[in-house]
Amino acid sequence: MQSIEFYRSEFLSYLKEYTIDKEPVNLYEPVNYILNLGGKRLRPVLTLLSAELFGGDYRKALNAALAIEVFHNFSLVHDDIMDDAPLRRGKTTVHEKWNVNTGILSGDAMLISAYRVLEGYEPLIFQKLSRLFSETALKVCEGQQYDIDFETREDVTIPEYLQMIEYKTAVLIGAALQMGAITAGQPENVQSDIYRFGLHLGIAFQLQDDYLDAFGNPETFGKQIGGDIIENKKTYLYLKTLEGGTDIQKKELLDLYSIQPVDPTAKIQTIKELFVECGSADATSEAIREYSNSAFAILEKLPVSKEKKDVLRQFGESLMVRKV
Amino acid sequence: MQSIEFYRSEFLSYLKEYTIDKEPVNLYEPVNYILNLGGKRLRPVLTLLSAELFGGDYRKALNAALAIEVFHNFSLVHDDIMDDAPLRRGKTTVHEKWNVNTGILSGDAMLISAYRVLEGYEPLIFQKLSRLFSETALKVCEGQQYDIDFETREDVTIPEYLQMIEYKTAVLIGAALQMGAITAGQPENVQSDIYRFGLHLGIAFQLQDDYLDAFGNPETFGKQIGGDIIENKKTYLYLKTLEGGTDIQKKELLDLYSIQPVDPTAKIQTIKELFVECGSADATSEAIREYSNSAFAILEKLPVSKEKKDVLRQFGESLMVRKV
Repeated sequence: MQSIEFYRSEFLSYLKEYTIDKEPVNLYEPVNYILNLGGKRLRPVLTLLSAELFGGDYRKALNAALAIEVFHNFSLVHDDIMDDAPLRRGKTTVHEKWNVNTGILSGDAMLISAYRVLEGYEPLIFQKLSRLFSETALKVCEGQQYDIDFETREDVTIPEYLQMIEYKTAVLIGAALQMGAITAGQPENVQSDIYRFGLHLGIAFQLQDDYLDAFGNPETFGKQIGGDIIENKKTYLYLKTLEGGTDIQKKELLDLYSIQPVDPTAKIQTIKELFVECGSADATSEAIREYSNSAFAILEKLPVSKEKKDVLRQFGESLMVRKV
Repeated sequence: MQSIEFYRSEFLSYLKEYTIDKEPVNLYEPVNYILNLGGKRLRPVLTLLSAELFGGDYRKALNAALAIEVFHNFSLVHDDIMDDAPLRRGKTTVHEKWNVNTGILSGDAMLISAYRVLEGYEPLIFQKLSRLFSETALKVCEGQQYDIDFETREDVTIPEYLQMIEYKTAVLIGAALQMGAITAGQPENVQSDIYRFGLHLGIAFQLQDDYLDAFGNPETFGKQIGGDIIENKKTYLYLKTLEGGTDIQKKELLDLYSIQPVDPTAKIQTIKELFVECGSADATSEAIREYSNSAFAILEKLPVSKEKKDVLRQFGESLMVRKV
């Protein structure tokens, strides 16, 4: 088994070859643009890692990894339209650089292209990959719909929120790993284990994102601290406060979440104090720890060598201690 | 082999069972809405007909037919957003009834769902169907992009226009038929023949649509006569005039295509006369005849009984003599 950097670099070379040099230019130029905006390439690297973890050859997993990355970028293009986001990875979003119609149509072409990338696998493997891919892709859409629905709902529960982040973010991490296992010819119980490892790691990762948005180090977090608070986003911290806070704390949070001050500094500060005082900050840390521990416990039980598991565990851990 | 009405009715029963009764409601309600707006169900009926033409069982082709119809409706939802269309089949479009974001996301869910409908086929058949489906779906996106590009281009050639309608409309007719042949276990040369039959029929059908938009019977055409002229759409009639008209005729057409009068009656009348005088109307009729004849010639050569071919030929002919 090689290093994370090796797999990332192999994937990047493979992605570079994929550049679509085809007519109509106005359809494929945005596809090449978004696929080359950068990013950590976390999901495809997990696919390659998983293939080699189970004794497969990462080269056989490259197309599965590419399908996952193309799908992920499709979802970014369409989500950015829905969120009216001007920037993605610090660059202009597709619908801003071109227009909304181009964003819709190029996104559609990417979703279809992701399936095409899988076509080279032998029929039985292809069907397994395609089924997992479709099931996952549909859940990602459902997660996005829940996220939209939650914006206008005042009665979102913690289990509902956890299901939303599971669908919107975690299932694709799980599927990326499971696809690696499928290309390595693993049986369903092993596929299921590595999927659940990814699912729990993905949930922990997303909860950590909620936590760092309020309590992260501004020097290293990469996004503006308090961004979720400014947008009145119903994060895990917010929902935990409504669940476990006193009536006074709940009222204060709801009041602050009903305003949009020009200078949000005081609002952010007060809400962060509230999150700490009512125990939501600790509860979130605890939930992150639980989901990570659960993920790593699943990994430990896998019937593969300790040395190989260590690579995946260290990669997982490196994701879970970023920028706190 | 049964009647067209039998296959349509069987498909409609199957479609009814497909209603997605699943959370989140805001994602799936628009899917059920558009799938039940009606329409001729031309494409899925062709899939079932093709399966039985080649000695297969239409019941084995129902899922392929459903995938085609779900994909077709996905493309309508996204196209209606891009065209800012208020109505589809006389009813409110999805993005008007809900909103653009719902149209995008529910459309995405439909595209993925179309693939899922194919999952029940055995691996080898599944891979064949899925490959054809993806290749076709991507061409439909490319056709839509060409259509958008052509709106702002002044140098569109007849071959380019023919490729656009081939991709945007005809390939899906071809694929619907080929998928029936695949479920009936036909070899590639037969698949290819029935695909080309559909492709040529589809091009003839779309050219006829251009022709009828100007010269159809207002009582039976279903859409407003002259709609393309009002919108300054670059149809086959328009391009043929620019290709074969005199300099004076070309100038008149370009002038008239640069205005948007409140009452378009005179503009429509003058342009129709121009289409007749310069021979574009006849040239369009001739092209329709050529593509239909080519389609029926391919059909005649198929190694199946005359009785069976007659059902498909009559169905094709019924599409080609509508509302003139």
